Amino acid sequence: MFERIAILGAGLIGASVALAAREAGAARVVALYDANEAVRARAKEIGLGEIAESAEAAVMGAELVVLAVPVGAMGAAMQSIAPHLAQGAILTDVGSVKGAVLNAVGPHLPAHAVFVPGHPIAGTEHSGPDAGFASLFHGRWHVLTPFDESEEGKTALGKLVAFWEKLGARVEVMSHERHDVVLAVTSHLPHLIAFNIVAMAEDLENVTETEVVKYSASGFRDFTRIAASDPTMWRDVFLNNREAVLEVLGRFSEDLAALQRAIRWGDGQSLYTIFDRARRMRREVIDAGQDTPAPNWGRDTKGE
Amino acid sequence: MFERIAILGAGLIGASVALAAREAGAARVVALYDANEAVRARAKEIGLGEIAESAEAAVMGAELVVLAVPVGAMGAAMQSIAPHLAQGAILTDVGSVKGAVLNAVGPHLPAHAVFVPGHPIAGTEHSGPDAGFASLFHGRWHVLTPFDESEEGKTALGKLVAFWEKLGARVEVMSHERHDVVLAVTSHLPHLIAFNIVAMAEDLENVTETEVVKYSASGFRDFTRIAASDPTMWRDVFLNNREAVLEVLGRFSEDLAALQRAIRWGDGQSLYTIFDRARRMRREVIDAGQDTPAPNWGRDTKGE
Repeated sequence: MFERIAILGAGLIGASVALAAREAGAARVVALYDANEAVRARAKEIGLGEIAESAEAAVMGAELVVLAVPVGAMGAAMQSIAPHLAQGAILTDVGSVKGAVLNAVGPHLPAHAVFVPGHPIAGTEHSGPDAGFASLFHGRWHVLTPFDESEEGKTALGKLVAFWEKLGARVEVMSHERHDVVLAVTSHLPHLIAFNIVAMAEDLENVTETEVVKYSASGFRDFTRIAASDPTMWRDVFLNNREAVLEVLGRFSEDLAALQRAIRWGDGQSLYTIFDRARRMRREVIDAGQDTPAPNWGRDTKGE
Repeated sequence: MFERIAILGAGLIGASVALAAREAGAARVVALYDANEAVRARAKEIGLGEIAESAEAAVMGAELVVLAVPVGAMGAAMQSIAPHLAQGAILTDVGSVKGAVLNAVGPHLPAHAVFVPGHPIAGTEHSGPDAGFASLFHGRWHVLTPFDESEEGKTALGKLVAFWEKLGARVEVMSHERHDVVLAVTSHLPHLIAFNIVAMAEDLENVTETEVVKYSASGFRDFTRIAASDPTMWRDVFLNNREAVLEVLGRFSEDLAALQRAIRWGDGQSLYTIFDRARRMRREVIDAGQDTPAPNWGRDTKGE
């Protein structure tokens, strides 16, 4: 158990770490700071922890510091706390991109602290302090991308593994390069596609927004959930994982063009083959415990 | 209440209509026929209704006949039952495309029967007789696209509206042209995109299928649900609503290219504006009662 941890950023993830760490007995004192005054006030109101009035005050004496701000704000956050970190402090983050965070945070890291980047594969479409809940990490993967091979680095990694496991997560270690390529496929591209189709549907010439909303249960509504995610966070993801996202997006467009061609030429066999292949993937996701088998996720009345 | 209805096709929708009609007291006898022998056997086993050994036997004496086969099989199904339809029989269908069904069914329609095409905006990713359940249509829209303006046509329309309302649906009447354009946006394109991204992820060069499955909770898993839908049904949808799908797909690709460009050039303002616009659509879908506001659709442990 850590005596004191500090969390910078009291959004969905920061708030959930605070609640989970206390519920799991992974930290005695949880200090939080958020650059937004209204968020700080709300975090205090709902009792997320000890709310500090500055980033420096939050990290003072903390054994573990969790950066839970958008990827694009990591560098500045690190810069502001660097001189105030305790001797031997462990630093981690929860950013969805790992290479860019390392580049932004690394240069400001003082010699007396250790940095182990991380990313919880968990979240919801909601944001802000009220969206946090203690069980968010239960059964979910937490990826750590350590780079420091010193003794201190290894000790810090071990402590972080134990911390996240206490919060209910399963921990996986990989390089930040690998993380960024894999997440471009499983997370960044799906979000980009969802944002695109939902934003598009809002200003079509021949179908009204009211019609789209009214008949959204036929498929479209699924995309709106993902597209409801925090726009600042996602802007930063795409700006900071550009290469990997552009590469997988190129492949997506290429395959979509092939589907388009099959539709235009009435090539039912190709369509069937591709659809059938896609179907098998669902079974694997369910077997891996990554989703519920309930039809429609059980969301419709008696839909199970 | 109908004395006897016949349903051709005992898949998810056909089975649900059978169960719903009996539960709601909308039909005294429900006869079903499916071209697949194993499906017929299973339908009998789980007690969906009176299972006929031929389409002709099923429709004999039925006041209402529901075509619940894939869109591409509607014409042949109609041809086989046409000479056996009862005097004054009402015919409807549940196909996801309405123009093509009208073209396929219309020419075989005998003078003594009335056809009112329809489409329930309801379903799950599961298929087959076991996937059916009586409450599938509760609170969902059912679209009817009548074309017959005779007295008989109007009477049939009125009876079908009453029938679907008894099954719990809300009924909307529109032209088949309008239906096909609206559904291309809300249903056909989302499914095409989902099929495409899921099939793509199965054979990437630099990311393994195991990795995709393992980290699918970060967005990808949502797409696998939709992509698990019946491939035959969907092949037929795309082959039969070609123009509308190609048009909206063109717009989708155009907008995606703009997002791609914004990422390449680091244009964070454009990304933010588009993402923020997409987010608002989610609120409208929830306010319209078309989806649950529970984070992650409440599917993760204590995720609410």
